Amino acid sequence: MTTDSYERINCPIAHTLAVLGDQWTLLIVRDALWGLRRFGEFQQSLGISRNLLTRRLKELCEHGILERVALPGSKRFAYRPTGKCHDLRLVILAMAEWGERWRPDPKGARIQILERESGRPVGVRFCALADHTEIDTAQVEVIRRGFNPPDDSLLGH
Amino acid sequence: MTTDSYERINCPIAHTLAVLGDQWTLLIVRDALWGLRRFGEFQQSLGISRNLLTRRLKELCEHGILERVALPGSKRFAYRPTGKCHDLRLVILAMAEWGERWRPDPKGARIQILERESGRPVGVRFCALADHTEIDTAQVEVIRRGFNPPDDSLLGH
Repeated sequence: MTTDSYERINCPIAHTLAVLGDQWTLLIVRDALWGLRRFGEFQQSLGISRNLLTRRLKELCEHGILERVALPGSKRFAYRPTGKCHDLRLVILAMAEWGERWRPDPKGARIQILERESGRPVGVRFCALADHTEIDTAQVEVIRRGFNPPDDSLLGH
Repeated sequence: MTTDSYERINCPIAHTLAVLGDQWTLLIVRDALWGLRRFGEFQQSLGISRNLLTRRLKELCEHGILERVALPGSKRFAYRPTGKCHDLRLVILAMAEWGERWRPDPKGARIQILERESGRPVGVRFCALADHTEIDTAQVEVIRRGFNPPDDSLLGH
């Protein structure tokens, strides 16, 4: 296998992991998709040091996954998910389904993925693209047990 | 948000990342699904130190994602993906699609996901589970540009 290092560098999975390879990075993405926006909200959710969180947020902005926007009338900032971040919803929810299946909570499902209007269960699966059977991401609602999303939650609408 | 630390610990995404949080771990899973089995094959593909690879393989066996089997007539071992590993295919291929979309190769697609019999393009998408429109994972074939899978590739059949 003489093309190994080429393949490693030129693999789209390796490229994705080069951006998201740190587990904190994906948990920040998760929280941004759940609707968290402020530095303090991420810190409280993740319990990581200010330094580490500052670094990870900066990298996510450099990669165009979050954007840092000034809050009106304040010296503070919010971190908003971009389209590139929204597009990670499938990755994040495929991980959630794996976690539910292989590390279940004896008390029941921690997460439910539903079609918004019908309330029918939805899953991350393989689809034949030409069939147009997929559920549009805007129609997918995620319910986390014991969690009330902020108003601007992006998993909520 | 007083339930933060509870939510963090009891989130199925965090559970998944606790197992897969290291980027090498997911690249080993990728390679196992591509059909790699031997220590030397993983090392050549990933270019990481023997020590680090030994640790990651041991952890993957402890988590039941790979199993270490003695090769007949040899003192050597192979690492075989379990059902828990196969179930990560959706996570890995959702990452591949994100990498293709957001970090494309100017020379064209590095990976194609196809329905085996028809050759139609397949994607990782949201499906209404009751509709049974999903393509069974056994019917999904992955073609990587410039890569010839070993005979026992598990992404190949």
